[in-house]
Amino acid sequence: MKEIVIGFLGCGNIGCGVYRLLETHGQEMAANEGVSFAVRRILVRDPKKKRGWEIPSVLLTDRAEEVLEDPQISIVMEFMGGEEPAASYIIRALRAGKSVVTANKMALATHWDEIIAAARESGAGLYYEASVCGAIPIIRAMTDSLQANRITSLMGIINGTTNYILSRMSREGADYSEVLGDAQRLGLAEPDPTADVEGYDAAYKLSILSSLAFHRHVPVEKIYREGITGVTALDVACGREFGLTLKLLAVAKEENGSIQARVHPTFVPDSHPLASVSDAFNAVFVNGHACGEMMFYGRGAGDLPTASALVSDLVKAAKADHHSLPAVSSQSVFMAEDWECVHFVRMLAKDEPGVLRDVAGRFADEGVSIASMVQKGKRDEGGYVQLIFLTHRASEKHVRRALERMDGSLAREICVIRVENE
Amino acid sequence: MKEIVIGFLGCGNIGCGVYRLLETHGQEMAANEGVSFAVRRILVRDPKKKRGWEIPSVLLTDRAEEVLEDPQISIVMEFMGGEEPAASYIIRALRAGKSVVTANKMALATHWDEIIAAARESGAGLYYEASVCGAIPIIRAMTDSLQANRITSLMGIINGTTNYILSRMSREGADYSEVLGDAQRLGLAEPDPTADVEGYDAAYKLSILSSLAFHRHVPVEKIYREGITGVTALDVACGREFGLTLKLLAVAKEENGSIQARVHPTFVPDSHPLASVSDAFNAVFVNGHACGEMMFYGRGAGDLPTASALVSDLVKAAKADHHSLPAVSSQSVFMAEDWECVHFVRMLAKDEPGVLRDVAGRFADEGVSIASMVQKGKRDEGGYVQLIFLTHRASEKHVRRALERMDGSLAREICVIRVENE
Repeated sequence: MKEIVIGFLGCGNIGCGVYRLLETHGQEMAANEGVSFAVRRILVRDPKKKRGWEIPSVLLTDRAEEVLEDPQISIVMEFMGGEEPAASYIIRALRAGKSVVTANKMALATHWDEIIAAARESGAGLYYEASVCGAIPIIRAMTDSLQANRITSLMGIINGTTNYILSRMSREGADYSEVLGDAQRLGLAEPDPTADVEGYDAAYKLSILSSLAFHRHVPVEKIYREGITGVTALDVACGREFGLTLKLLAVAKEENGSIQARVHPTFVPDSHPLASVSDAFNAVFVNGHACGEMMFYGRGAGDLPTASALVSDLVKAAKADHHSLPAVSSQSVFMAEDWECVHFVRMLAKDEPGVLRDVAGRFADEGVSIASMVQKGKRDEGGYVQLIFLTHRASEKHVRRALERMDGSLAREICVIRVENE
Repeated sequence: MKEIVIGFLGCGNIGCGVYRLLETHGQEMAANEGVSFAVRRILVRDPKKKRGWEIPSVLLTDRAEEVLEDPQISIVMEFMGGEEPAASYIIRALRAGKSVVTANKMALATHWDEIIAAARESGAGLYYEASVCGAIPIIRAMTDSLQANRITSLMGIINGTTNYILSRMSREGADYSEVLGDAQRLGLAEPDPTADVEGYDAAYKLSILSSLAFHRHVPVEKIYREGITGVTALDVACGREFGLTLKLLAVAKEENGSIQARVHPTFVPDSHPLASVSDAFNAVFVNGHACGEMMFYGRGAGDLPTASALVSDLVKAAKADHHSLPAVSSQSVFMAEDWECVHFVRMLAKDEPGVLRDVAGRFADEGVSIASMVQKGKRDEGGYVQLIFLTHRASEKHVRRALERMDGSLAREICVIRVENE
């Protein structure tokens, strides 16, 4: 039996989950996989703090070098989260020839080149299944199962907090701020929810996923990002009437040699497999030229689901004779500046003769063709009515230009939500 | 660049799909993966037959030894299908030290021990992702991603033909035989549909899946198997009224130390992720103690989806320094002789005073508790009415015994469909 000595960086809920899995399931796993693990040292901020699982205090240290420089430790597991010092520690571990297993999408997405370079130089392994969608083996799918495919698109619900909020808004007709408050009380959203609700978390994950899908690095700063804070109960309700469900989607597509990568509130048809992915569940829908449509569904967060992915990486790292780096070329990526999709447009338009003609005219001027239009409710006190348009597939730029040309003069409070119906 | 010389056993649609993927996508794959493939010899029944993709005739042979005994060939891909001679060829290839990539669930499920033994002796690799659910990487999920989990249950729609038939019956209220005829005309069902509609195909796949899930070999002959030929439009319609969708499910569970493995028509709640898996799509729903609920969804058949899985195995086999055998112990498995679930029971009961009391009494005698009951339609000419019962979770054996005790005397045409609602 091969015994591998490992160290942890961090020991919050996820670290405790990993420790717990190794303690309770380690023997069975050793029998199945022929490899066992001994945790030698755990870096924590405060060794005296009470933790979610009983961990021998002799393992705890607040000095990073006791993990990073211990020659006996061959695999370092990182679950500190955040950009720094996690990224620097990951790089130090790799440079020291220690393989790294990490759940840290932020460190990975923001320091991709340096981290990959450090792994390449030393030959150490880099494993990050847990960084995207918790237990769902979507990284393995990309790297180990879809090699024969040209991936044409991927669309994912990859942030559980926003999916919980949107699911409840959809079910209850509730408003964003109301549900956010509940989510915070339940511990499903952070006290400062920005990273989730503004789509940063999803963008980090999409950077990793799309880089693997398209074999070129898609930097996080090139991802179009729009959060869910502007979404209203009215949008959700209007979408329903068109047979559409609102999700925060991470979308990446390769079209005509350029890559689109974007995170934004998105309507999908109620019949789409992603529409029924509710609450804190995650799912990634992938389209490949050979495999066709696939979807991977499961728990995208939580201590044990994330630990499940981390431990599977740990086993993979331990059993590997040599480590494969991600098949992502350093060749710079050509990002699309525009993309086409169906647009849902809601606006308060002046309720005057000729306004609808003029609104329609602005769309027509930009080549945007309207698939359907409804008027909601009655004229308000200011003399405006709520109009909702669904366009045919149209250029994002053209739609925006058309809307700019009517904003103020013909309509106000214009809201655009993209529709993905493929 | 590592170049690997390979041979094919068989070259029907799937073989042509693999050849086509290697020809059209091989260069890109080589750039990504650092390995390329040269097809050296292809065993076919008739080298003169016209095929779906143009294959140089110099590669074709009708002599198996030209593939099995060629020392240059290091990986053999098998897509002949059927038990023999495929199983013997797989074993010969493995014994000769050649790794085998196969899509053949029947050969694998029926000759598991011999095939594994041959691989173990020579150290050659055995790869079979394509044998279950086409493009869906469910084998990888079991072997490479869920190692840290005790799998408690798996439920799958793993036969596309029956799912197509049941989906259409459900949508259109059509009868089994009518839709089967259509499926045959469309090439979605074989002229002799037995292997699909009687659940044999699903049982082979379940044998493989459940062996990996529970780490003990679940022989196909120990799997309870019931096909969809007895399912009526009435059953489908009655299920609908209870909010249930009918699927042919492959179910495997570990409960109290014993394993249940069964293939049968099954109702799932309309809200269950499996309920919306329609037509020729496949999906496997897995429950693990750490990962929680997961689902893998995609195309379970077709030449390119299956080729996608075969080529991913090919890459894996080519890049491996040593090959892992499935973590399945030879320790014999303890199969459950009974299991508990909710039962949907439809019967024609005598429309006489006291009959309902007596029917209810038979259920009660066996400890089967009724959750709901409805009467459908009117008394027929023979004086019978259609009754439908939904039980609470109850022992399969007890339900059967209760029904035997009312069959003939109180009711006739009794039909039982299990309900999985977890």
